[in-house]
Amino acid sequence: MTWTNPNISLIGAPGGRARLDTPALCVDLDALERNIAIMAARMKGRGVALRPHCKTHKSVTIARMQVAAGAIGICCTTLGEAEIMVAGGLPGVHITSPQVTPSKIERLVALAARAHLGLTVAVDDLSNLAVLAAAAAAAGIELGVLADYSAGHHRTGAATEDDVLSLARAAAEATALRFRGVQSYSGHIQHIAERAEQLERARVRLSILGRLVAALRAEGIEVPIVTGSGTGTHEIDAASGVFTEIQAGSYVFMDVDYHRAMAAGLNGPNFETALFVQTAVVSRNGAVIPGGYVTTDAGLKSFATEGPNPELMSGGPAGATYAFFGDEHGMLRFPQGAPVPALGDRVELMTPHCDPTVNLYDAYHVVRADTLVEVWPVDARGKR
Amino acid sequence: MTWTNPNISLIGAPGGRARLDTPALCVDLDALERNIAIMAARMKGRGVALRPHCKTHKSVTIARMQVAAGAIGICCTTLGEAEIMVAGGLPGVHITSPQVTPSKIERLVALAARAHLGLTVAVDDLSNLAVLAAAAAAAGIELGVLADYSAGHHRTGAATEDDVLSLARAAAEATALRFRGVQSYSGHIQHIAERAEQLERARVRLSILGRLVAALRAEGIEVPIVTGSGTGTHEIDAASGVFTEIQAGSYVFMDVDYHRAMAAGLNGPNFETALFVQTAVVSRNGAVIPGGYVTTDAGLKSFATEGPNPELMSGGPAGATYAFFGDEHGMLRFPQGAPVPALGDRVELMTPHCDPTVNLYDAYHVVRADTLVEVWPVDARGKR
Repeated sequence: MTWTNPNISLIGAPGGRARLDTPALCVDLDALERNIAIMAARMKGRGVALRPHCKTHKSVTIARMQVAAGAIGICCTTLGEAEIMVAGGLPGVHITSPQVTPSKIERLVALAARAHLGLTVAVDDLSNLAVLAAAAAAAGIELGVLADYSAGHHRTGAATEDDVLSLARAAAEATALRFRGVQSYSGHIQHIAERAEQLERARVRLSILGRLVAALRAEGIEVPIVTGSGTGTHEIDAASGVFTEIQAGSYVFMDVDYHRAMAAGLNGPNFETALFVQTAVVSRNGAVIPGGYVTTDAGLKSFATEGPNPELMSGGPAGATYAFFGDEHGMLRFPQGAPVPALGDRVELMTPHCDPTVNLYDAYHVVRADTLVEVWPVDARGKR
Repeated sequence: MTWTNPNISLIGAPGGRARLDTPALCVDLDALERNIAIMAARMKGRGVALRPHCKTHKSVTIARMQVAAGAIGICCTTLGEAEIMVAGGLPGVHITSPQVTPSKIERLVALAARAHLGLTVAVDDLSNLAVLAAAAAAAGIELGVLADYSAGHHRTGAATEDDVLSLARAAAEATALRFRGVQSYSGHIQHIAERAEQLERARVRLSILGRLVAALRAEGIEVPIVTGSGTGTHEIDAASGVFTEIQAGSYVFMDVDYHRAMAAGLNGPNFETALFVQTAVVSRNGAVIPGGYVTTDAGLKSFATEGPNPELMSGGPAGATYAFFGDEHGMLRFPQGAPVPALGDRVELMTPHCDPTVNLYDAYHVVRADTLVEVWPVDARGKR
């Protein structure tokens, strides 16, 4: 079935932002540009490379903006994201999750063969490494691999330093593989709001990682890349001298969750909220009930639901709060005595957790002040 | 960027189900067909019509199967769903949520003009009704409306019986509108697992609704349609004599949430689980840790997260449990001493809440036993 986003017709129209068909996922282009510039400058200042994670935005356009600002490449969680980024001409695409099933390995090798600007993949298992080596050899290509080290997160990654050494040796020996370095993502440290605790835990991991890289080099294994980190620990990690590059992703948009975790920033300006959902009031019969509310047209199919609730950014009475109210509806509670929003009134909400919220939409509505300036596809949404 | 689902090539191949590119949203076609047949027969036996809710499946194919089995039409929550269902040739499309913003009303009137097999919309506000009447008159069409009554749920719907009477009178008087009846959805009663409590609360609502319909008819207002209900209360509501039709949706698939709520069914066979996600083991380094686990490739971008956790249906050691482990990964914990799953092993998981899980995927992988027989698009996903 063909279906056209009705907001396309509003691009460039005066006041288009106030007339969007809702719910609409929106990007504040000024804030996005500033966030991209701040992170690029910060990493440049530290002499550390930036290979931002596209799992946040899944957008070729935003990835290109990051590379134009100095990023050396793009990280992807899923193979489908990597296929989209390579098709979009992005350089230095790195897949941060192991690819193990036969169909994924077939796709990976085919992608590597056409990724002329670089492709690497994380590996955390010797048997997987052997399968990749055989598949790359059969295809007549050289596949770049990074040994994934769990760093206490234990989602993926080799569990011990010895396991990383074994992976590095095996990769160095496999003729169709090229060992490119080590990946270590401390996902469990990203969201610690207590800065002293986060620093202490990060330093423990950094010390282990530094020792591991030294051990590899002591064996004569080249380790050109040490990659990892995220928005929550990018400052600690970039200053550590251990990482050669940083994989942060959420900084482009920010969200309720990251604003809470980063309220006490280490230094420098914090990132701005560049992502929000515009929703409209569609029912107001709840306003007559004590503890009144109105119903909006964005619910649990329009926001990530595994974290905090969305938070009001603009529109709606001061002090109003949002709660989920079913698949396609939200409840906007307002303080006693506040003016009751009218049918059709717009409310803009900060997303609870940016990555899985973006994953619910086909398109970004890109605004500057009151104007819808562009509509960008969420290119890699749903691509696994 | 063009991107093709790699599983298309497996359609009809022997043992294709075991070789799916993962994570894959799957439909057990036998179970789906049985669920559709059971509900159709049950409603026919009660002399009540069925207008199932497509917000669950967002699929033209499944909607057509429901109509072929006797459903008189299809309910939609969003206008985008209705546009897709009308384009798919479905009859009797009813939009269960008020449409209030200018862009939605413009689209609604345009849709009504081309919906030759019927279109109705819920209305819960007199000012909205007046705007709809003017828009329909300007377009030279007659728009069918149902007065939405909140029934204690208060998400949408008029708050009082008097408000419903006012809406019905105003609709009856508007030349471009046609009053078609009353909608009343008791969403808050759908998921009550304690059957006696559910029955009691449903009976209170049914008695109020029955009185309301009688009051409308006593005024000489025709009420051809009394619509509402859901999978959780379809038996109570169909037997009530109040509803002329039932809007149940989730019965086609079922999920962890509905199986818990419906464990003590009132009568007749229960619906089967017809929807699941197939995921593969992608990392097993966590298996060496006490309280061992492996990591699979389906995480919080692959399941609804606002309810219970996904539950193991097949694959994996007996007694294994699933927990979310980030955007694209899950943690499969297994009992001490159980065999550790191998890399690439498949696990099939019941979805926590079917509607918002389906909303995360572009396609259904339709299986019969071990064969992938078809791939269906989730036609209305992302259409608001």
